[in-house]
Amino acid sequence: MASNNGDVKLIGAWASPYVMRPRIALNVKSVEYEFLQEQFGSKSELLLKSNPVHKKIPVLLHNGKPICESSIIVEYIDEVWSSGPSILPSDPYDRAVARFWAAYLDEKWFPNVRAAPMAATEEAKNAAVEQLKEGLALLEEISKGKDFFGGEKIGFIDIAFGSMLAWLRALQVMLGGVKLLDEEKTPGLCKWAAKFSADPAVKDVLPETEKIIEFAKLLVAKIKAAAASS
Amino acid sequence: MASNNGDVKLIGAWASPYVMRPRIALNVKSVEYEFLQEQFGSKSELLLKSNPVHKKIPVLLHNGKPICESSIIVEYIDEVWSSGPSILPSDPYDRAVARFWAAYLDEKWFPNVRAAPMAATEEAKNAAVEQLKEGLALLEEISKGKDFFGGEKIGFIDIAFGSMLAWLRALQVMLGGVKLLDEEKTPGLCKWAAKFSADPAVKDVLPETEKIIEFAKLLVAKIKAAAASS
Repeated sequence: MASNNGDVKLIGAWASPYVMRPRIALNVKSVEYEFLQEQFGSKSELLLKSNPVHKKIPVLLHNGKPICESSIIVEYIDEVWSSGPSILPSDPYDRAVARFWAAYLDEKWFPNVRAAPMAATEEAKNAAVEQLKEGLALLEEISKGKDFFGGEKIGFIDIAFGSMLAWLRALQVMLGGVKLLDEEKTPGLCKWAAKFSADPAVKDVLPETEKIIEFAKLLVAKIKAAAASS
Repeated sequence: MASNNGDVKLIGAWASPYVMRPRIALNVKSVEYEFLQEQFGSKSELLLKSNPVHKKIPVLLHNGKPICESSIIVEYIDEVWSSGPSILPSDPYDRAVARFWAAYLDEKWFPNVRAAPMAATEEAKNAAVEQLKEGLALLEEISKGKDFFGGEKIGFIDIAFGSMLAWLRALQVMLGGVKLLDEEKTPGLCKWAAKFSADPAVKDVLPETEKIIEFAKLLVAKIKAAAASS
């Protein structure tokens, strides 16, 4: 779609938290874009050509130029459409803190969202759940006294963490009712999650928990089958 | 050390490539700093207090405030001391590309520098070496026709990759003369490596290959012993 934003396309898939990040960021900036969805289980020529190193979604195509890796895309969106609300804070220290938590979520926390339902033993599952709870306790601490991690509006940490919210909710159900977002232990995060999910930039991007559960079951079955046959 | 830079301290260790990154960045910006070296095998109270989440070096302390994670520290240095030469490009697309390669090096490439000498089988070692060579071929491609990845001067990719140079040279020796930086296959990188290593911001930071080999042998022995006793 050509507009005064230039030609903006996003290669992705509705269920991927990493794809939700640039979608939310584009919404925050009121940038129109064409959403090119990959088919589950295959990779399009456009994706392979646009991200030959990782061959992964999301890829943002801006006037034909590809930008890869979800957090890098969000920073790009923030820098290019700088007339819209800022996603990263303006102070360098606050920016470093926001980048720190986004990296923490990707490297340390989210792998446990994947690991928990895939765990081969009860012990491994419990270890993943414990690490998820530890991470949520850290996030609860830094969320205190604010509407969003970014202050009064959605910022970098909100997008990094919020993109994982639908999967976190699905995980609670898939693990038989384990409480991760807990009104007693993480009241700040519960409040934040409700506010974030209802935000106009977010509400049409976050899928319903039931849809994620259905998709996650397919995914877990596929990964387990692949592991068993290798 | 208090100066017109403010109070700048870096918690690190001479042999860590991740610590070399902020050291080079601070040199690029001509920022004086105090280098607080951790003892091998233990973690100081200051480190544990400054980086309670990861408990890892490097940590930059700027007027007492801690900034963690090497690439995030380099971006912080670039933003705070903006009067010095820029480390990241000014164009958002070029910035995204620089961030992409820095992330690639951390996530995909450097783990093989660790894996190769630790490999339990010849097959695993060869697989790690192949992946290193594939990465170097990609970097050779993007280095073409420039003094540095950043153009005429040291930039974000130069620091991200160059910090790994001493370890790469050591690895070649430790693997019995495997050629990774290869005059025939990666002539651009060989030229770049010579220029980068001789740069005033770099030359006192990159350790001699012999020193890294000595340290790496200790490290490999320690990790293997820990694995055997667990």
